[in-house]
Amino acid sequence: MTRAELIATIRRKRSLLCVGLDTEEHLVPDHFRAESHPVRAYNEAIVEVTHDLAVAYKLNLAFYEALGDQGWLDLEATIAYIRSKGSCFIIADAKRGDIGNTARKYAEAFFDRLDVDAVTLSPYMGRDSIEPFLKRPGKWAIVLGITSNAGADDFQFHTGADGKRLFENVITKGAQWGTPDELMFVTGATRPQLLRDARALVPDHFLLVPGVGAQGGDLDAVLEAGLTSDGGLLINSSRGVLYAGAGEDAIPLARRAALYLQQDMEKKMRERGVVR
Amino acid sequence: MTRAELIATIRRKRSLLCVGLDTEEHLVPDHFRAESHPVRAYNEAIVEVTHDLAVAYKLNLAFYEALGDQGWLDLEATIAYIRSKGSCFIIADAKRGDIGNTARKYAEAFFDRLDVDAVTLSPYMGRDSIEPFLKRPGKWAIVLGITSNAGADDFQFHTGADGKRLFENVITKGAQWGTPDELMFVTGATRPQLLRDARALVPDHFLLVPGVGAQGGDLDAVLEAGLTSDGGLLINSSRGVLYAGAGEDAIPLARRAALYLQQDMEKKMRERGVVR
Repeated sequence: MTRAELIATIRRKRSLLCVGLDTEEHLVPDHFRAESHPVRAYNEAIVEVTHDLAVAYKLNLAFYEALGDQGWLDLEATIAYIRSKGSCFIIADAKRGDIGNTARKYAEAFFDRLDVDAVTLSPYMGRDSIEPFLKRPGKWAIVLGITSNAGADDFQFHTGADGKRLFENVITKGAQWGTPDELMFVTGATRPQLLRDARALVPDHFLLVPGVGAQGGDLDAVLEAGLTSDGGLLINSSRGVLYAGAGEDAIPLARRAALYLQQDMEKKMRERGVVR
Repeated sequence: MTRAELIATIRRKRSLLCVGLDTEEHLVPDHFRAESHPVRAYNEAIVEVTHDLAVAYKLNLAFYEALGDQGWLDLEATIAYIRSKGSCFIIADAKRGDIGNTARKYAEAFFDRLDVDAVTLSPYMGRDSIEPFLKRPGKWAIVLGITSNAGADDFQFHTGADGKRLFENVITKGAQWGTPDELMFVTGATRPQLLRDARALVPDHFLLVPGVGAQGGDLDAVLEAGLTSDGGLLINSSRGVLYAGAGEDAIPLARRAALYLQQDMEKKMRERGVVR
Protein backbone atom coordinates (compact mmCIF):
# COMPACT_ATOMS: atom_id res chain seq x y z
CA MET A 1 0.00 0.00 0.00
CA THR A 2 1.47 3.37 -1.02
CA ARG A 3 1.53 6.42 1.22
CA ALA A 4 -1.23 8.06 -0.86
CA GLU A 5 -3.42 4.96 -0.49
CA LEU A 6 -2.74 4.79 3.23
CA ILE A 7 -3.72 8.42 3.75
CA ALA A 8 -6.85 7.93 1.64
CA THR A 9 -7.78 4.90 3.76
CA ILE A 10 -7.27 6.90 6.97
CA ARG A 11 -9.56 9.65 5.65
CA ARG A 12 -12.21 7.25 4.40
CA LYS A 13 -12.34 5.16 7.60
CA ARG A 14 -11.79 8.27 9.76
CA SER A 15 -9.43 6.19 11.79
CA LEU A 16 -5.77 5.68 12.68
CA LEU A 17 -6.50 2.36 14.34
CA CYS A 18 -4.16 -0.60 14.00
CA VAL A 19 -5.48 -3.79 15.57
CA GLY A 20 -2.76 -6.08 16.87
CA LEU A 21 -3.45 -9.76 16.33
CA ASP A 22 -1.24 -11.17 19.11
CA THR A 23 -3.54 -14.14 19.29
CA GLU A 24 -2.86 -16.91 21.79
CA GLU A 25 -4.72 -20.18 21.52
CA HIS A 26 -5.30 -20.51 25.26
CA LEU A 27 -6.86 -17.03 25.46
CA VAL A 28 -9.29 -17.58 22.60
CA PRO A 29 -12.89 -18.02 23.85
CA ASP A 30 -14.10 -21.60 24.30
CA HIS A 31 -16.43 -21.59 21.32
CA PHE A 32 -13.45 -20.88 19.04
CA ARG A 33 -11.24 -23.47 20.63
CA ALA A 34 -13.48 -26.20 19.21
CA GLU A 35 -12.51 -25.09 15.66
CA SER A 36 -9.80 -27.01 13.79
CA HIS A 37 -7.68 -23.82 13.63
CA PRO A 38 -8.72 -21.72 16.66
CA VAL A 39 -6.23 -18.88 16.16
CA ARG A 40 -7.14 -18.49 12.51
CA ALA A 41 -10.87 -18.66 13.23
CA TYR A 42 -10.62 -16.08 16.00
CA ASN A 43 -8.52 -13.74 13.88
CA GLU A 44 -11.07 -13.96 11.07
CA ALA A 45 -13.94 -13.17 13.43
CA ILE A 46 -12.04 -10.17 14.83
CA VAL A 47 -11.17 -8.89 11.36
CA GLU A 48 -14.77 -9.39 10.21
CA VAL A 49 -16.10 -6.98 12.88
CA THR A 50 -13.26 -4.44 12.85
CA HIS A 51 -12.12 -3.99 9.24
CA ASP A 52 -14.36 -0.96 8.67
CA LEU A 53 -12.80 0.68 11.76
CA ALA A 54 -9.18 -0.42 11.45
CA VAL A 55 -6.78 1.07 8.93
CA ALA A 56 -4.16 -1.55 9.74
CA TYR A 57 -3.57 -4.94 11.31
CA LYS A 58 -0.35 -5.89 13.03
CA LEU A 59 0.57 -9.55 13.32
CA ASN A 60 3.08 -10.29 16.04
CA LEU A 61 5.26 -13.06 14.67
CA ALA A 62 6.21 -14.51 18.05
CA PHE A 63 2.67 -15.71 18.63
CA TYR A 64 2.65 -17.62 15.34
CA GLU A 65 6.19 -18.98 15.56
CA ALA A 66 5.31 -20.46 18.94
CA LEU A 67 2.90 -22.72 17.01
CA GLY A 68 5.55 -23.90 14.51
CA ASP A 69 4.59 -24.72 10.91
CA GLN A 70 0.87 -24.62 11.82
CA GLY A 71 1.39 -21.10 13.15
CA TRP A 72 2.95 -20.13 9.86
CA LEU A 73 -0.15 -21.44 8.05
CA ASP A 74 -2.37 -19.47 10.49
CA LEU A 75 -0.36 -16.37 9.65
CA GLU A 76 -0.77 -16.88 5.90
CA ALA A 77 -4.48 -17.61 6.23
CA THR A 78 -5.07 -14.53 8.40
CA ILE A 79 -3.21 -12.29 5.94
CA ALA A 80 -5.27 -13.69 3.05
CA TYR A 81 -8.47 -13.06 5.01
CA ILE A 82 -7.52 -9.44 5.77
CA ARG A 83 -6.63 -8.93 2.08
CA SER A 84 -10.09 -10.21 1.10
CA LYS A 85 -11.61 -7.33 3.06
CA GLY A 86 -10.09 -4.67 0.82
CA SER A 87 -7.81 -1.83 1.78
CA CYS A 88 -6.07 -2.64 5.05
CA PHE A 89 -2.40 -2.04 5.77
CA ILE A 90 -0.78 -5.25 7.06
CA ILE A 91 2.24 -5.12 9.36
CA ALA A 92 4.43 -8.09 10.27
CA ASP A 93 5.63 -7.15 13.74
CA ALA A 94 8.84 -9.12 13.52
CA LYS A 95 11.50 -6.70 14.82
CA ARG A 96 14.09 -8.30 12.57
CA GLY A 97 17.54 -6.86 11.87
CA ASP A 98 20.48 -8.72 10.37
CA ILE A 99 23.38 -8.37 7.93
CA GLY A 100 22.65 -7.56 4.29
CA ASN A 101 22.32 -11.05 2.78
CA THR A 102 20.12 -12.20 5.67
CA ALA A 103 18.03 -9.04 5.64
CA ARG A 104 17.37 -9.68 1.95
CA LYS A 105 16.05 -13.12 2.88
CA TYR A 106 13.75 -11.62 5.52
CA ALA A 107 12.50 -9.08 2.98
CA GLU A 108 11.76 -11.98 0.66
CA ALA A 109 9.96 -13.89 3.45
CA PHE A 110 7.77 -10.96 4.43
CA PHE A 111 7.21 -8.98 1.25
CA ASP A 112 7.24 -11.68 -1.42
CA ARG A 113 6.09 -14.78 0.39
CA LEU A 114 3.73 -13.41 3.07
CA ASP A 115 2.86 -10.28 1.06
CA VAL A 116 2.54 -7.92 4.02
CA ASP A 117 2.87 -4.16 3.54
CA ALA A 118 5.39 -3.51 6.27
CA VAL A 119 7.87 -5.14 8.64
CA THR A 120 9.13 -3.80 11.97
CA LEU A 121 12.93 -3.71 12.23
CA SER A 122 15.46 -3.22 14.99
CA PRO A 123 18.09 -0.57 14.19
CA TYR A 124 21.02 -1.98 16.21
CA MET A 125 22.85 -3.36 13.14
CA GLY A 126 22.54 -0.14 11.15
CA ARG A 127 21.94 0.84 7.58
CA ASP A 128 22.63 -2.41 5.69
CA SER A 129 20.14 -4.21 7.95
CA ILE A 130 17.37 -1.77 6.87
CA GLU A 131 18.12 -1.08 3.21
CA PRO A 132 16.92 -4.40 1.77
CA PHE A 133 13.42 -3.43 2.95
CA LEU A 134 13.45 -0.11 1.06
CA LYS A 135 12.97 0.88 -2.60
CA ARG A 136 10.07 -1.53 -3.01
CA PRO A 137 7.09 0.58 -4.05
CA GLY A 138 4.19 0.11 -1.65
CA LYS A 139 6.30 -1.78 0.91
CA TRP A 140 7.56 -0.28 4.17
CA ALA A 141 10.28 -0.64 6.78
CA ILE A 142 9.16 0.35 10.28
CA VAL A 143 12.24 1.05 12.40
CA LEU A 144 12.16 0.88 16.21
CA GLY A 145 12.75 4.35 17.61
CA ILE A 146 11.23 4.53 21.08
CA THR A 147 9.67 1.38 22.46
CA SER A 148 6.88 1.25 25.01
CA ASN A 149 8.47 -1.15 27.48
CA ALA A 150 10.42 -0.54 30.68
CA GLY A 151 13.65 -1.78 29.06
CA ALA A 152 13.53 1.17 26.63
CA ASP A 153 15.40 3.01 29.40
CA ASP A 154 18.42 0.77 29.15
CA PHE A 155 19.85 2.11 25.89
CA GLN A 156 17.39 4.20 23.87
CA PHE A 157 17.62 7.33 26.04
CA HIS A 158 21.35 7.12 26.57
CA THR A 159 22.85 10.50 25.73
CA GLY A 160 25.83 10.57 23.41
CA ALA A 161 28.89 12.80 23.54
CA ASP A 162 27.08 14.77 20.80
CA GLY A 163 24.23 15.55 23.24
CA LYS A 164 21.77 13.35 21.31
CA ARG A 165 19.94 10.43 22.81
CA LEU A 166 20.31 7.13 20.96
CA PHE A 167 16.72 7.14 19.70
CA GLU A 168 17.27 10.62 18.24
CA ASN A 169 20.26 9.35 16.29
CA VAL A 170 18.25 6.35 15.14
CA ILE A 171 15.39 8.52 13.92
CA THR A 172 17.65 11.09 12.28
CA LYS A 173 19.72 8.48 10.44
CA GLY A 174 16.68 6.36 9.60
CA ALA A 175 15.05 9.36 7.96
CA GLN A 176 18.15 9.78 5.79
CA TRP A 177 17.93 6.15 4.70
CA GLY A 178 14.23 5.99 3.90
CA THR A 179 11.75 8.58 2.67
CA PRO A 180 8.30 9.13 4.23
CA ASP A 181 6.98 6.93 1.37
CA GLU A 182 8.80 3.81 2.51
CA LEU A 183 9.91 4.13 6.13
CA MET A 184 8.07 4.68 9.41
CA PHE A 185 9.22 4.63 13.02
CA VAL A 186 7.90 2.85 16.09
CA THR A 187 7.40 5.37 18.86
CA GLY A 188 5.76 3.97 21.98
CA ALA A 189 2.69 5.57 23.51
CA THR A 190 3.83 5.34 27.10
CA ARG A 191 5.99 8.51 27.02
CA PRO A 192 4.10 11.27 25.13
CA GLN A 193 6.87 13.85 25.56
CA LEU A 194 9.27 11.56 23.72
CA LEU A 195 6.71 11.05 20.99
CA ARG A 196 6.64 14.84 20.62
CA ASP A 197 10.45 14.84 20.37
CA ALA A 198 10.29 12.17 17.67
CA ARG A 199 7.63 14.06 15.71
CA ALA A 200 9.82 17.19 15.77
CA LEU A 201 12.63 15.20 14.11
CA VAL A 202 10.43 13.65 11.41
CA PRO A 203 7.43 15.85 10.64
CA ASP A 204 6.44 13.79 7.57
CA HIS A 205 7.18 10.18 8.49
CA PHE A 206 4.40 7.97 9.77
CA LEU A 207 4.75 6.79 13.36
CA LEU A 208 3.48 3.39 14.49
CA VAL A 209 2.45 3.81 18.11
CA PRO A 210 2.08 0.72 20.28
CA GLY A 211 1.31 0.75 23.97
CA VAL A 212 -2.15 2.36 24.06
CA GLY A 213 -4.36 0.34 26.40
CA ALA A 214 -2.87 -2.68 28.18
CA GLN A 215 0.54 -0.99 28.38
CA GLY A 216 -0.91 2.25 29.77
CA GLY A 217 -0.45 4.76 26.95
CA ASP A 218 -3.02 7.55 26.74
CA LEU A 219 -4.75 7.98 23.37
CA ASP A 220 -5.41 11.71 23.67
CA ALA A 221 -1.82 12.45 24.60
CA VAL A 222 -0.62 10.40 21.63
CA LEU A 223 -2.89 12.25 19.21
CA GLU A 224 -1.85 15.59 20.69
CA ALA A 225 1.83 14.76 20.29
CA GLY A 226 1.89 13.00 16.93
CA LEU A 227 -1.05 13.88 14.66
CA THR A 228 -0.21 15.60 11.36
CA SER A 229 -2.36 16.99 8.56
CA ASP A 230 -2.08 13.56 6.83
CA GLY A 231 -2.86 11.66 10.01
CA GLY A 232 0.73 10.52 10.26
CA LEU A 233 -0.02 7.92 12.93
CA LEU A 234 -0.98 4.28 13.14
CA ILE A 235 -2.08 3.67 16.71
CA ASN A 236 -2.03 0.07 17.78
CA SER A 237 -4.22 -1.71 20.26
CA SER A 238 -3.70 -5.45 20.67
CA ARG A 239 -5.05 -6.90 23.89
CA GLY A 240 -7.54 -4.03 24.35
CA VAL A 241 -9.46 -5.16 21.27
CA LEU A 242 -8.54 -8.82 20.98
CA TYR A 243 -9.42 -9.68 24.56
CA ALA A 244 -12.08 -7.04 25.27
CA GLY A 245 -14.19 -10.03 26.27
CA ALA A 246 -13.34 -13.63 27.05
CA GLY A 247 -16.65 -15.44 26.59
CA GLU A 248 -19.52 -15.70 24.12
CA ASP A 249 -19.53 -11.91 23.71
CA ALA A 250 -15.81 -11.54 22.89
CA ILE A 251 -16.47 -10.57 19.27
CA PRO A 252 -19.11 -7.85 19.88
CA LEU A 253 -16.98 -6.52 22.74
CA ALA A 254 -13.96 -6.39 20.43
CA ARG A 255 -15.98 -4.34 17.96
CA ARG A 256 -17.12 -2.00 20.70
CA ALA A 257 -13.52 -1.49 21.92
CA ALA A 258 -12.37 -0.76 18.36
CA LEU A 259 -15.30 1.60 17.81
CA TYR A 260 -14.52 3.64 20.93
CA LEU A 261 -10.92 4.04 19.80
CA GLN A 262 -11.98 4.97 16.26
CA GLN A 263 -14.49 7.53 17.57
CA ASP A 264 -11.85 9.20 19.75
CA MET A 265 -9.52 9.30 16.76
CA GLU A 266 -12.21 10.71 14.46
CA LYS A 267 -13.07 13.43 16.97
CA LYS A 268 -9.45 14.60 17.24
CA MET A 269 -8.95 14.36 13.47
CA ARG A 270 -12.02 16.56 12.91
CA GLU A 271 -10.77 19.14 15.41
CA ARG A 272 -7.44 19.24 13.62
CA GLY A 273 -8.92 19.30 10.12
CA VAL A 274 -7.47 15.95 9.05
CA VAL A 275 -11.01 14.86 8.14
CA ARG A 276 -14.07 16.98 7.65
CA MET B 1 23.51 -27.75 27.03
CA THR B 2 25.09 -26.40 30.20
CA ARG B 3 28.31 -24.42 30.31
CA ALA B 4 30.18 -27.42 31.77
CA GLU B 5 28.90 -29.64 28.94
CA LEU B 6 29.81 -27.03 26.34
CA ILE B 7 33.37 -26.72 27.66
CA ALA B 8 33.71 -30.51 27.80
CA THR B 9 32.55 -30.72 24.17
CA ILE B 10 35.06 -28.07 23.13
CA ARG B 11 37.88 -30.01 24.82
CA ARG B 12 36.80 -33.36 23.42
CA LYS B 13 36.38 -32.13 19.84
CA ARG B 14 39.38 -29.77 20.19
CA SER B 15 37.32 -27.22 18.38
CA LEU B 16 35.47 -23.93 18.74
CA LEU B 17 33.81 -24.30 15.38
CA CYS B 18 30.21 -23.30 14.81
CA VAL B 19 28.89 -24.17 11.36
CA GLY B 20 26.24 -21.78 10.10
CA LEU B 21 23.45 -23.46 8.16
CA ASP B 22 22.29 -20.46 6.10
CA THR B 23 21.12 -22.83 3.45
CA GLU B 24 19.50 -21.52 0.27
CA GLU B 25 17.73 -23.88 -2.04
CA HIS B 26 19.10 -22.31 -5.21
CA LEU B 27 22.70 -22.66 -3.94
CA VAL B 28 22.38 -26.33 -3.04
CA PRO B 29 24.26 -28.59 -5.52
CA ASP B 30 22.17 -30.09 -8.32
CA HIS B 31 22.19 -33.63 -6.98
CA PHE B 32 20.47 -32.40 -3.79
CA ARG B 33 17.93 -30.31 -5.64
CA ALA B 34 16.33 -33.50 -6.96
CA GLU B 35 15.44 -34.48 -3.35
CA SER B 36 11.91 -33.81 -2.07
CA HIS B 37 13.36 -31.50 0.63
CA PRO B 38 16.65 -30.15 -0.80
CA VAL B 39 17.50 -27.81 2.10
CA ARG B 40 16.91 -30.49 4.69
CA ALA B 41 18.84 -33.11 2.69
CA TYR B 42 21.79 -30.77 2.20
CA ASN B 43 21.86 -29.78 5.87
CA GLU B 44 21.88 -33.42 6.89
CA ALA B 45 24.76 -34.20 4.55
CA ILE B 46 26.74 -31.24 5.91
CA VAL B 47 26.05 -32.22 9.51
CA GLU B 48 26.99 -35.84 8.76
CA VAL B 49 30.52 -34.85 7.66
CA THR B 50 31.16 -32.03 10.17
CA HIS B 51 29.62 -33.07 13.51
CA ASP B 52 32.91 -34.49 14.82
CA LEU B 53 34.59 -31.15 14.04
CA ALA B 54 31.84 -28.68 14.96
CA VAL B 55 30.93 -27.86 18.55
CA ALA B 56 27.87 -25.91 17.42
CA TYR B 57 25.48 -25.32 14.55
CA LYS B 58 23.81 -22.00 13.92
CA LEU B 59 20.56 -21.91 11.96
CA ASN B 60 19.77 -18.55 10.45
CA LEU B 61 16.00 -18.20 10.71
CA ALA B 62 15.63 -15.87 7.71
CA PHE B 63 16.61 -18.62 5.32
CA TYR B 64 13.91 -20.93 6.66
CA GLU B 65 11.19 -18.29 7.01
CA ALA B 66 11.69 -17.40 3.36
CA LEU B 67 10.34 -20.91 2.62
CA GLY B 68 7.21 -20.49 4.77
CA ASP B 69 5.70 -23.46 6.62
CA GLN B 70 7.91 -25.88 4.64
CA GLY B 71 10.93 -23.93 5.83
CA TRP B 72 9.76 -24.34 9.39
CA LEU B 73 9.56 -28.11 8.86
CA ASP B 74 13.08 -28.07 7.36
CA LEU B 75 14.26 -26.25 10.47
CA GLU B 76 12.68 -28.80 12.81
CA ALA B 77 14.01 -31.73 10.79
CA THR B 78 17.53 -30.28 10.72
CA ILE B 79 17.51 -29.70 14.48
CA ALA B 80 16.32 -33.28 15.09
CA TYR B 81 19.08 -34.56 12.82
CA ILE B 82 21.78 -32.58 14.66
CA ARG B 83 20.41 -33.85 18.00
CA SER B 84 20.68 -37.43 16.74
CA LYS B 85 24.44 -36.90 16.37
CA GLY B 86 24.99 -36.35 20.10
CA SER B 87 26.49 -33.35 21.82
CA CYS B 88 26.22 -30.32 19.57
CA PHE B 89 25.17 -26.86 20.72
CA ILE B 90 22.33 -25.56 18.54
CA ILE B 91 21.81 -21.83 18.00
CA ALA B 92 18.73 -20.24 16.45
CA ASP B 93 20.18 -17.12 14.85
CA ALA B 94 16.98 -15.13 15.07
CA LYS B 95 18.08 -11.75 16.46
CA ARG B 96 14.73 -11.31 18.17
CA GLY B 97 13.95 -8.65 20.76
CA ASP B 98 10.51 -7.57 21.90
CA ILE B 99 8.49 -6.57 24.98
CA GLY B 100 8.14 -9.02 27.85
CA ASN B 101 4.98 -10.92 26.87
CA THR B 102 6.20 -11.27 23.28
CA ALA B 103 9.70 -12.24 24.34
CA ARG B 104 8.15 -15.01 26.44
CA LYS B 105 6.40 -16.31 23.32
CA TYR B 106 9.66 -16.31 21.39
CA ALA B 107 11.36 -18.16 24.24
CA GLU B 108 8.55 -20.71 24.04
CA ALA B 109 8.93 -20.98 20.24
CA PHE B 110 12.68 -21.52 20.37
CA PHE B 111 13.36 -23.32 23.63
CA ASP B 112 10.22 -25.41 24.09
CA ARG B 113 8.99 -25.98 20.58
CA LEU B 114 12.21 -26.05 18.50
CA ASP B 115 14.37 -27.17 21.44
CA VAL B 116 17.48 -25.24 20.48
CA ASP B 117 20.12 -24.39 23.10
CA ALA B 118 20.43 -20.70 22.36
CA VAL B 119 18.80 -17.76 20.58
CA THR B 120 20.49 -14.59 19.34
CA LEU B 121 18.81 -11.40 20.60
CA SER B 122 18.99 -7.72 19.75
CA PRO B 123 19.54 -5.49 22.81
CA TYR B 124 17.75 -2.34 21.61
CA MET B 125 14.65 -2.92 23.76
CA GLY B 126 16.62 -3.57 26.93
CA ARG B 127 16.36 -5.84 29.92
CA ASP B 128 12.76 -7.10 29.72
CA SER B 129 13.35 -8.20 26.13
CA ILE B 130 16.24 -10.46 27.27
CA GLU B 131 15.08 -11.78 30.66
CA PRO B 132 12.48 -14.28 29.40
CA PHE B 133 15.38 -16.19 27.80
CA LEU B 134 17.30 -16.48 31.10
CA LYS B 135 16.96 -18.72 34.17
CA ARG B 136 16.31 -21.79 32.05
CA PRO B 137 19.04 -24.26 32.92
CA GLY B 138 20.97 -25.34 29.84
CA LYS B 139 19.39 -22.63 27.64
CA TRP B 140 21.16 -19.46 26.54
CA ALA B 141 20.52 -15.91 25.40
CA ILE B 142 23.15 -14.59 22.96
CA VAL B 143 22.99 -10.79 22.90
CA LEU B 144 24.29 -8.74 19.97
CA GLY B 145 27.28 -6.72 21.11
CA ILE B 146 29.44 -5.93 18.10
CA THR B 147 28.20 -7.09 14.74
CA SER B 148 30.38 -7.90 11.74
CA ASN B 149 28.60 -5.77 9.13
CA ALA B 150 29.33 -2.27 7.82
CA GLY B 151 26.19 -0.90 9.52
CA ALA B 152 27.69 -1.71 12.93
CA ASP B 153 29.29 1.75 12.62
CA ASP B 154 25.93 3.51 12.63
CA PHE B 155 25.12 3.11 16.33
CA GLN B 156 27.23 0.48 18.09
CA PHE B 157 30.39 2.57 18.34
CA HIS B 158 28.62 5.79 19.19
CA THR B 159 30.28 7.27 22.27
CA GLY B 160 28.05 8.34 25.12
CA ALA B 161 28.40 11.35 27.41
CA ASP B 162 29.83 8.80 29.88
CA GLY B 163 32.71 8.07 27.47
CA LYS B 164 31.45 4.55 26.75
CA ARG B 165 30.55 3.30 23.32
CA LEU B 166 27.07 1.81 22.97
CA PHE B 167 28.36 -1.76 22.60
CA GLU B 168 30.31 -1.36 25.84
CA ASN B 169 27.14 -0.37 27.66
CA VAL B 170 25.30 -3.29 26.08
CA ILE B 171 27.96 -5.77 27.16
CA THR B 172 28.31 -4.31 30.66
CA LYS B 173 24.56 -4.30 31.30
CA GLY B 174 24.04 -7.66 29.61
CA ALA B 175 26.60 -9.21 31.92
CA GLN B 176 24.64 -7.87 34.89
CA TRP B 177 21.45 -9.47 33.57
CA GLY B 178 22.81 -12.90 32.71
CA THR B 179 25.62 -14.99 34.18
CA PRO B 180 28.29 -16.74 32.08
CA ASP B 181 26.14 -19.88 32.49
CA GLU B 182 23.20 -18.49 30.53
CA LEU B 183 24.25 -15.50 28.44
CA MET B 184 26.78 -14.98 25.65
CA PHE B 185 27.52 -12.04 23.38
CA VAL B 186 27.86 -11.76 19.62
CA THR B 187 31.14 -10.03 18.81
CA GLY B 188 31.95 -9.89 15.11
CA ALA B 189 35.29 -11.12 13.77
CA THR B 190 35.87 -8.25 11.40
CA ARG B 191 37.31 -5.86 14.03
CA PRO B 192 39.73 -7.81 16.29
CA GLN B 193 40.60 -4.79 18.45
CA LEU B 194 36.94 -4.43 19.41
CA LEU B 195 36.76 -8.12 20.20
CA ARG B 196 39.67 -7.54 22.58
CA ASP B 197 37.76 -4.65 24.17
CA ALA B 198 34.71 -6.89 24.60
CA ARG B 199 36.77 -9.68 26.14
CA ALA B 200 38.22 -7.21 28.67
CA LEU B 201 34.67 -6.36 29.79
CA VAL B 202 33.51 -9.98 30.11
CA PRO B 203 36.42 -12.31 30.83
CA ASP B 204 34.13 -15.28 31.57
CA HIS B 205 31.25 -14.98 29.12
CA PHE B 206 31.31 -16.96 25.91
CA LEU B 207 31.52 -14.92 22.71
CA LEU B 208 29.85 -16.05 19.50
CA VAL B 209 32.02 -14.74 16.68
CA PRO B 210 30.54 -14.51 13.19
CA GLY B 211 32.30 -13.04 10.21
CA VAL B 212 35.28 -15.37 9.77
CA GLY B 213 35.62 -16.27 6.10
CA ALA B 214 33.16 -14.73 3.63
CA GLN B 215 32.93 -11.54 5.68
CA GLY B 216 36.71 -11.18 5.95
CA GLY B 217 37.44 -11.86 9.62
CA ASP B 218 40.82 -13.39 10.42
CA LEU B 219 40.75 -16.57 12.53
CA ASP B 220 44.15 -16.10 14.17
CA ALA B 221 43.33 -12.55 15.21
CA VAL B 222 40.02 -13.73 16.70
CA LEU B 223 41.70 -16.48 18.70
CA GLU B 224 44.40 -14.08 19.87
CA ALA B 225 41.81 -11.55 21.03
CA GLY B 226 39.16 -13.79 22.55
CA LEU B 227 40.44 -17.20 23.65
CA THR B 228 40.19 -18.02 27.36
CA SER B 229 41.28 -21.00 29.45
CA ASP B 230 37.79 -22.52 28.88
CA GLY B 231 37.84 -21.77 25.18
CA GLY B 232 35.27 -19.02 25.65
CA LEU B 233 34.57 -18.70 21.93
CA LEU B 234 32.22 -20.17 19.37
CA ILE B 235 33.59 -19.16 15.98
CA ASN B 236 31.09 -19.32 13.17
CA SER B 237 31.67 -20.06 9.52
CA SER B 238 28.61 -20.26 7.30
CA ARG B 239 29.28 -19.82 3.61
CA GLY B 240 32.95 -20.91 3.98
CA VAL B 241 31.85 -24.44 4.91
CA LEU B 242 28.38 -24.69 3.40
CA TYR B 243 29.45 -23.57 -0.05
CA ALA B 244 33.10 -24.69 -0.04
CA GLY B 245 32.11 -26.49 -3.25
CA ALA B 246 29.13 -26.18 -5.56
CA GLY B 247 29.12 -29.46 -7.47
CA GLU B 248 29.41 -33.21 -6.82
CA ASP B 249 32.28 -32.60 -4.39
CA ALA B 250 30.45 -30.02 -2.20
CA ILE B 251 30.21 -32.35 0.77
CA PRO B 252 33.86 -33.50 0.90
CA LEU B 253 34.97 -29.90 0.32
CA ALA B 254 32.74 -28.76 3.21
CA ARG B 255 34.43 -31.30 5.46
CA ARG B 256 37.84 -30.14 4.33
CA ALA B 257 36.96 -26.48 5.04
CA ALA B 258 35.67 -27.40 8.51
CA LEU B 259 38.74 -29.52 9.17
CA TYR B 260 41.15 -26.68 8.32
CA LEU B 261 39.30 -24.37 10.69
CA GLN B 262 39.26 -27.00 13.45
CA GLN B 263 42.98 -27.69 13.01
CA ASP B 264 43.84 -24.00 13.30
CA MET B 265 41.68 -23.78 16.43
CA GLU B 266 43.25 -26.91 17.94
CA LYS B 267 46.76 -25.57 17.31
CA LYS B 268 46.03 -22.29 19.09
CA MET B 269 44.21 -24.07 21.94
CA ARG B 270 47.23 -26.33 22.48
CA GLU B 271 49.60 -23.35 22.54
CA ARG B 272 47.41 -21.68 25.12
CA GLY B 273 46.87 -24.82 27.20
CA VAL B 274 43.11 -25.02 26.63
CA VAL B 275 43.62 -28.60 25.42
CA ARG B 276 46.63 -30.83 25.85
